[in-house]
Amino acid sequence: MNDQYYMSLAISLAKSVSGQTNPNPPVGAVVVKDGQIIGLGAHLKAGEPHAEIHALHMAGDKAEDATIYVTLEPCSHHGKTPPCADFILQKGLSRVVVATVDPNEKVAGRGIKRLRDSGIQVDVGVLKEEADYINRVFFYYIQHQKPFVTLKSATSLDGKIATSSGESKWITGEKAREDAHHYRHTHDAILVGVNTVIEDNPNLTTRLPQGGKNPIRVVLDTHLRTPIDSNVIRKNDTLTWIVTGSEVDDTEKVKYEKFTHVEVIQLENPEITVSEVLKELGSRKIMSLLIEGGAEVNGSFLKEKACQQVITYIAPKLIGGREAPTSMGGDGVQNLADSLDLSIQSVETIGGDLKIVAEVKNEYEG
Amino acid sequence: MNDQYYMSLAISLAKSVSGQTNPNPPVGAVVVKDGQIIGLGAHLKAGEPHAEIHALHMAGDKAEDATIYVTLEPCSHHGKTPPCADFILQKGLSRVVVATVDPNEKVAGRGIKRLRDSGIQVDVGVLKEEADYINRVFFYYIQHQKPFVTLKSATSLDGKIATSSGESKWITGEKAREDAHHYRHTHDAILVGVNTVIEDNPNLTTRLPQGGKNPIRVVLDTHLRTPIDSNVIRKNDTLTWIVTGSEVDDTEKVKYEKFTHVEVIQLENPEITVSEVLKELGSRKIMSLLIEGGAEVNGSFLKEKACQQVITYIAPKLIGGREAPTSMGGDGVQNLADSLDLSIQSVETIGGDLKIVAEVKNEYEG
Repeated sequence: MNDQYYMSLAISLAKSVSGQTNPNPPVGAVVVKDGQIIGLGAHLKAGEPHAEIHALHMAGDKAEDATIYVTLEPCSHHGKTPPCADFILQKGLSRVVVATVDPNEKVAGRGIKRLRDSGIQVDVGVLKEEADYINRVFFYYIQHQKPFVTLKSATSLDGKIATSSGESKWITGEKAREDAHHYRHTHDAILVGVNTVIEDNPNLTTRLPQGGKNPIRVVLDTHLRTPIDSNVIRKNDTLTWIVTGSEVDDTEKVKYEKFTHVEVIQLENPEITVSEVLKELGSRKIMSLLIEGGAEVNGSFLKEKACQQVITYIAPKLIGGREAPTSMGGDGVQNLADSLDLSIQSVETIGGDLKIVAEVKNEYEG
Repeated sequence: MNDQYYMSLAISLAKSVSGQTNPNPPVGAVVVKDGQIIGLGAHLKAGEPHAEIHALHMAGDKAEDATIYVTLEPCSHHGKTPPCADFILQKGLSRVVVATVDPNEKVAGRGIKRLRDSGIQVDVGVLKEEADYINRVFFYYIQHQKPFVTLKSATSLDGKIATSSGESKWITGEKAREDAHHYRHTHDAILVGVNTVIEDNPNLTTRLPQGGKNPIRVVLDTHLRTPIDSNVIRKNDTLTWIVTGSEVDDTEKVKYEKFTHVEVIQLENPEITVSEVLKELGSRKIMSLLIEGGAEVNGSFLKEKACQQVITYIAPKLIGGREAPTSMGGDGVQNLADSLDLSIQSVETIGGDLKIVAEVKNEYEG
């Protein structure tokens, strides 16, 4: 076995915890000695031990002179847990293999330097591309201080999200809809417009056979019209943040106060802008944001090109109708050259429907 | 090697000539003796020898006591060529393996019966499903006396065929557009609305690196507005049929008379209906029809559910805009239950774009 093999295993461990480590990145680690795997670890949750610590605990005394493979540079600073670089030194390892450097300014090469300065061999860049991909949400957040945005939609083969009379339940099948819930689990927050709350009264929670983490619910609601008896207010499965414009009067906000899971976030301008929303969510440590429409909300994010990943489920049916709504409303671009270019990451069929994952090019490079 | 192996080869031969045999089906044949392939054949063009004849000519005297694999039941009637069943008997073969029965009422089991009555072993049904699939256009035509209809469109990932200002050239890339020309080669006729002729002035010919057969151009033009200087009139690469309603005056038709490749086909009612168009084209031996929009023409075929195959190219870009046009216009369905259900046959990426082939379920069964 070679470095790629062990790092690939570490990347699998990191992938498995993707979305549950906010505000930290998903990281995996593998400890190897004499061709035997003697430790495996992943960072499960913020505040809990990092991947390296779990893996080295599993290795115990055998860790001396071993090699550790880790998907992201070990930290060198005291955060909620002590620095991993120190623990690696303390355990007496002889070699550290790192997939990619941590761009977080508290680390940014310092972890690698500290290890090297102490005489340990450190090799950097093994499966860097794969590691950068699983870290893309974290890297994007670190770089921009705004959440990585995923636009999710479900359409017919002719691009409709409803019939011309407005019937939209359901265009895609049950399996595709269940698959979509996985993205609620892996995103820190989910965002809809207030019209979606009024018309569909969704829960916006994660409903998967094995359960899952609920995202924080964000409702864009310029004039504070979210109904007090809507599911996002009545049900306290997760937090609900209602984002309003500056002209909403304090007296209107009072009725939401008795719900401890609900917060009204008032922005500084009368109209809500996408960039203000993203800045606010970024300051609240929302690293990943899932947009579940409707069309006008999607269109407003598209207009600002505020979108890194696009998940599209396509049902093999034709609905037709020049008045039937599509997934991306708003004004749209005038010139094709201004459209948002993506590259397709994967295509698969799920229960007869098609699932297309596309990303904005080069957005996630570390 | 077994029956499936040789029949699979015969099906490959049939596939290779798909679209160039109108009004006959594509057929392939393989002759085998003592485990050696001694003859290969395909029906290349109507009026020319059938697949069996080509394959048996190649086999020559060795055909005695050999087995012939043929994708469609050998004919037993005198058409433009003598009956294949007779030639098989004459050459002294000992066994005939047939993938599927010819539903054409002039054959319909008579070829098989004639062979069996003469003491030859005939086995029917080897790779029937694959053979039915490549014969689906022919079978559909035989059954309905109307062309098999393919709707082709090219959209962005959010279902738009143009920006809200109308810019549509090009949404998909060069490779996808070249791939689409293959369908012009394999369809007998191509249909557009007169607005497409006026706005885009297309040639509607097959432009492939190796050339290809041009489809007959059909323009739906209720009030005979096709410009005399448009490419479909000026250029005589292939026939152009202009379909009009009953209220067009004879004097208006005169100006098209000097173009020998142009014919004005006047229907019986003031408004053109999809079913009348298909009936007329069927009576003119058009077995396969490619619809290349625009949106309103597509929508009118969709409304009548007059569509067997849907080819969709999707470019990984977002255009947005509630006013940007989609591929299927018209009124569309009101209830989701009334949408046209398809099943996905294949998905592939072509030069970064996605190509989805979907078909109406169970339309092509023989």
